[in-house]
Amino acid sequence: MPHIPLPDHLPGITGLLEYSKHTALPIRQLTQFLLRGDSTLSPGERELIATIVSHHNACAFCTAAHTAAADLLLGDVETCEIIKHDIDAAPVSEKMKSLLKIARQVQVSGKAVTTLAIEDAKNNGATDLEIHDTVLIAALFCLYNRYVDGMATVAPENPEFYHGLGQRLVDNGYNRLPDGYDHLKK
Amino acid sequence: MPHIPLPDHLPGITGLLEYSKHTALPIRQLTQFLLRGDSTLSPGERELIATIVSHHNACAFCTAAHTAAADLLLGDVETCEIIKHDIDAAPVSEKMKSLLKIARQVQVSGKAVTTLAIEDAKNNGATDLEIHDTVLIAALFCLYNRYVDGMATVAPENPEFYHGLGQRLVDNGYNRLPDGYDHLKK
Repeated sequence: MPHIPLPDHLPGITGLLEYSKHTALPIRQLTQFLLRGDSTLSPGERELIATIVSHHNACAFCTAAHTAAADLLLGDVETCEIIKHDIDAAPVSEKMKSLLKIARQVQVSGKAVTTLAIEDAKNNGATDLEIHDTVLIAALFCLYNRYVDGMATVAPENPEFYHGLGQRLVDNGYNRLPDGYDHLKK
Repeated sequence: MPHIPLPDHLPGITGLLEYSKHTALPIRQLTQFLLRGDSTLSPGERELIATIVSHHNACAFCTAAHTAAADLLLGDVETCEIIKHDIDAAPVSEKMKSLLKIARQVQVSGKAVTTLAIEDAKNNGATDLEIHDTVLIAALFCLYNRYVDGMATVAPENPEFYHGLGQRLVDNGYNRLPDGYDHLKK
């Protein structure tokens, strides 16, 4: 049960974004820019960063939601499961493996990011901006995971829920409110 | 040395906010709303939340900057130092002690927030919104601390630097760019 009253039909982050609309707006804008804005990293690659951080923060809602979005964007259901347990075994580029390892370090702590990991990413072709965006996406999901679990929001157990949510994140990105909540835009 | 080239004269978060202005805008807006917007928690109390989280994330730049801002807002230099080591000994309200303990749990993990800590805050008069804002401020500083240290930004050692920065955060809040950077608003 959430620590404060939240709408039953809006689990996880969705109820919090409705509860506090003034903070929801910049959070949505930041996420939209980082995960869907112009980038040399694909939206699927950026959803992998969100997924690996949420997984290691043990945030069930965010992990399931971003796994669903990444699966749809990448066109398979294996990559997410592999990166959660063994980055080097995943069918992604060497550059992406390096960036996922940096994201994994950010999840632990900013101070856990090593010069070796950064050099590895640069040697594998990562640009300064890709490294910057990886660190900031990973840091953003450390915010989301703490917000979602720190408020003890509900994580549905039904996989269909996350498939539907993942599809909405693919179709609409992060600026759109959930279906039926257009009146909140006023 | 930062992991990517950043302006020498803009240490810590300030260089990152210049490097990536599109992400800086919503980050600034979120921070301004949470730390300076209308609230039943004073700006000084909210800076204490930023300070305790940054301290326990061992982020030297953010800890010094928000300690300086909190000191100015609270009118003393003892409260910040005490809350870093012993919340119960600090000259703050029982409600604020409870909220600082929740922030401390959020710093560890969203899952570390206990129902007992939430009940304690409510028993000490904390509202649902104050609990929400405490969790989100703590989560936001987990983002900031990881961004600042994950990019290996420079933290000046001169205390005068942080006194000046703290004064700017008190006078101008979080929406204003550093002095001399008005051209970036275009």
